[in-house]
Amino acid sequence: MAIKVIAFDADDTLWVNEPYFEQTEKQFLILMQDYLSHQGLSQELFRIEIENLRLYGYGIKGYILSMIEAAIKISEGTLNIAAIEKILDLGKELLQKPIELLDGTEQTLQRLHSNYKLVVATKGDLLDQRRKLHNSGLGKYFHHIEVMSDKQEADYSDLVKRLDILPEEFYMIGNSLKSDVLPVLAIGGHSVHIPFHTTWLHERIDHEVHHERFRTLDSISQVPEIFNA
Amino acid sequence: MAIKVIAFDADDTLWVNEPYFEQTEKQFLILMQDYLSHQGLSQELFRIEIENLRLYGYGIKGYILSMIEAAIKISEGTLNIAAIEKILDLGKELLQKPIELLDGTEQTLQRLHSNYKLVVATKGDLLDQRRKLHNSGLGKYFHHIEVMSDKQEADYSDLVKRLDILPEEFYMIGNSLKSDVLPVLAIGGHSVHIPFHTTWLHERIDHEVHHERFRTLDSISQVPEIFNA
Repeated sequence: MAIKVIAFDADDTLWVNEPYFEQTEKQFLILMQDYLSHQGLSQELFRIEIENLRLYGYGIKGYILSMIEAAIKISEGTLNIAAIEKILDLGKELLQKPIELLDGTEQTLQRLHSNYKLVVATKGDLLDQRRKLHNSGLGKYFHHIEVMSDKQEADYSDLVKRLDILPEEFYMIGNSLKSDVLPVLAIGGHSVHIPFHTTWLHERIDHEVHHERFRTLDSISQVPEIFNA
Repeated sequence: MAIKVIAFDADDTLWVNEPYFEQTEKQFLILMQDYLSHQGLSQELFRIEIENLRLYGYGIKGYILSMIEAAIKISEGTLNIAAIEKILDLGKELLQKPIELLDGTEQTLQRLHSNYKLVVATKGDLLDQRRKLHNSGLGKYFHHIEVMSDKQEADYSDLVKRLDILPEEFYMIGNSLKSDVLPVLAIGGHSVHIPFHTTWLHERIDHEVHHERFRTLDSISQVPEIFNA
């Protein structure tokens, strides 16, 4: 069956993202290092972040709210107000990081966009992801952007329904086996994994994936070969 | 030309929203009343909220981040950490408010949904708006939900493009003249205004609207009459 839509994950697939979060977290660890070891701080922040995912969803604003909550809990309420101000500033900085495209991204989109409907399919804050797409200069290659509240099977089923296509006409390309590959294969779609050098703990899985509608590539530059583009 | 899509705004059009924000703000005013008059506090919170809109966008998470920032500024850094915790709690409460449908909503959707493609078109936090639609029990009447990063002309142009229809085939129904009416008329669509008893300051405009593709109704119950449904 012919492929009708190729969807690209955005963060760490089209452009750099996780390293920016890691820089922000590092500044949080330094800010809070009088209270707990770096490892202890990371663990507590991660725990609160995951606990709040159900309410806040993905994205920078929820991350910053969780960081404030973690800082207050870890300090047992003894934190200085200046530290909260610093965390708000870290959030605003993170929302304004420059877009750094991954190698080969633009050439790949150029080669594909006249023969396929390309969409961006990403989690995170709505406005933030739209702004990044706009600032990336890649908007012209995409039919539109889908900001998804999560990337589980039901979310992909909704997505293909909204795109008015069948799952087997859908190709997903991304850096997360958990979010970009497994749920897409489960609903009957195709997927390509392009590992990034660092992955958020929450996105990691501890097994390999083998499937006839799945393959791994080293770089986004290799994507056009799959489609003979 | 035949109407192909009828879009409904969500907050204060399908269900109660602004009164919940007002309750939350009232608690903020009480929390901070040692520092400034209620009016002074409201003004400063609003100023910071609007200043941050560009970065945070619409929705509860950005509102809470702005509230924390306002509290710190107003107190000139002398605020107690417990007050920040209280604000975080106010945000989590606001995210979990019950859904209270406006009178006539369900009957209207029942009468329209078999003859028209109905969508929800709303601003706010992605996950929050999806959750509200799910909890409302109205999901079955809608083809899908569009969470928009803003509701300006360009956003509506994008929307009708994504829906694969012409602007004149699009009908928007909502409680905000600024967000649900004026930009839709400007791109060539139709719109219905259903005033709600209270409107966020940022959504208010100070003039009346007269247009051949526009009308005002008292209640969502009157919407089916427009479509002879």
